[in-house]
Amino acid sequence: VAALRLWGQEASGNCYKVKLLAAHLGIALEWVRVDVTKGETRTPAFLAMSPAGQVPLLRCADGSHLPESGAILWYLGDGTRFVPTDPLARARVLQWMFFEQYRIEPNIATSRFWIHLLNEADRYAAEIAAKREPGLAALAVMEAHLAAADFFPGGAPSLADIALYGYVPCAPEGGFALDAFPRIRAWAQRVAALSGHIAMHDPLRPPSAYVKGLP
Amino acid sequence: VAALRLWGQEASGNCYKVKLLAAHLGIALEWVRVDVTKGETRTPAFLAMSPAGQVPLLRCADGSHLPESGAILWYLGDGTRFVPTDPLARARVLQWMFFEQYRIEPNIATSRFWIHLLNEADRYAAEIAAKREPGLAALAVMEAHLAAADFFPGGAPSLADIALYGYVPCAPEGGFALDAFPRIRAWAQRVAALSGHIAMHDPLRPPSAYVKGLP
Repeated sequence: VAALRLWGQEASGNCYKVKLLAAHLGIALEWVRVDVTKGETRTPAFLAMSPAGQVPLLRCADGSHLPESGAILWYLGDGTRFVPTDPLARARVLQWMFFEQYRIEPNIATSRFWIHLLNEADRYAAEIAAKREPGLAALAVMEAHLAAADFFPGGAPSLADIALYGYVPCAPEGGFALDAFPRIRAWAQRVAALSGHIAMHDPLRPPSAYVKGLP
Repeated sequence: VAALRLWGQEASGNCYKVKLLAAHLGIALEWVRVDVTKGETRTPAFLAMSPAGQVPLLRCADGSHLPESGAILWYLGDGTRFVPTDPLARARVLQWMFFEQYRIEPNIATSRFWIHLLNEADRYAAEIAAKREPGLAALAVMEAHLAAADFFPGGAPSLADIALYGYVPCAPEGGFALDAFPRIRAWAQRVAALSGHIAMHDPLRPPSAYVKGLP
C-alpha cells in the first residue's frame, strides 16, 4: 500500500481543501510542492500522472493518481462525518460542490490568481471585470442559503463546506470584498472554529493575515 | 410522495443528461419546459425553487428541489449500474463529472449557446475565441483517455459517460469539430448504441441531424 501523497501549491484553494479535510480526519498526506506559475504542472512527467495538468493530485493507496479536488474530497471523505448517508442529503452535498466548481472557482479563484498570485491586476483587468458579476451572484446565492442554514447544505459541516471554504474566505484577495455578505463571514468563522481546522498557509500573504484565523 | 418533475430546456445538454439517464433507468419524469433565453429561469417563482436560476431542476420525491445536473445524476444514478461500488472507482466517476463541468461545459457548451442557441456568433466572437484553446485542450484530454479505455472512467458506461455525452457530441454546434478526435467519435457511437439510449431532441436542429443518432 502506497502512502497517500498530494501534489499541490500552498496558495491554491483547491489544494487547501484537501489538506483541510485531511487535517480534520487525521489523514497523513505526503506533500509535494508544485509551482503552477512556473509550468511545473505542464511537464511530461506531471501530465503522465494528471492528464489535464491539474493540482491537487492524489496518489491513492493502490498507487494510482486521482485529480479533481471534488473527487479527491469524496474519495477521502465519504464514509466520514463530512458526508451524510441519506441519498438526497448526499446529492445536496454534491450540489454545493458542483456549485463551487462552476460558480465560485471560475470567477473568484481565477480573479484571485491574476490579482494575488500573479500580481497582474492591470494586465488582466478585462478578464477580472468579466468575472465580477457572476462572482458576486454566486456569493449572493451562498448568502441567501445561510439565512436558513448554518452550513452547506444543512445543519452540520460537510464536504461542501470544506470545498466552499477553499476560495470564499480569501475572496477579498480576488477583489471580492465580503463586507456585504455578513452571513458568509459568520459561516467562515463557524468553519474556522471547528476542531481540527487549519488555515491556508499562503506564502504570498502577510503573517498578520493569519491573526484572525481566516481563511 | 410527489412525482419526479424536471424543469429544463430541450436544447440544453445539462438537461438532456438527466433525461438520458432517466431513459436508461426507466425513471418517469414530468417535464416542464423553461426557456432560458426568455428569462424564465430568473423569475421570482423559479428562483425560489432554484436559487442560482439553474436548469435542470429536479423536484424530488419529498417535494424539495434539487439543482445542478451532476447532483441530480448522482441522486438518480447511485445504486444503479451507472455508479460502481468500489470507493476509488466512485471517485473516478466524480473526477470526470467535475472535469465535464469545469473543462467541457464552460468552454464548449457556452460557445454552443452563443452560436447555436442564440445564433449570435458575431456578437460573441471575442468570448468564443477565448473558449477555443481550453475547449480543445479538454477534448484532447478525453481523446487521450480513450486510448486505454472504452468509457469514462473505465470499462463500463457510468454517470460520467452520461454527463460527457451532454455536450461533447454536439460540440460541432459550438464550433468544435470532432474530426481530429476519432476516439471521441467512436466513444459517442458506443454510448449512442447502448440499449435505452435516447437522442437530444433539440428543436433548433434540422431533423436530418438525427439520422445517425448523434448526439
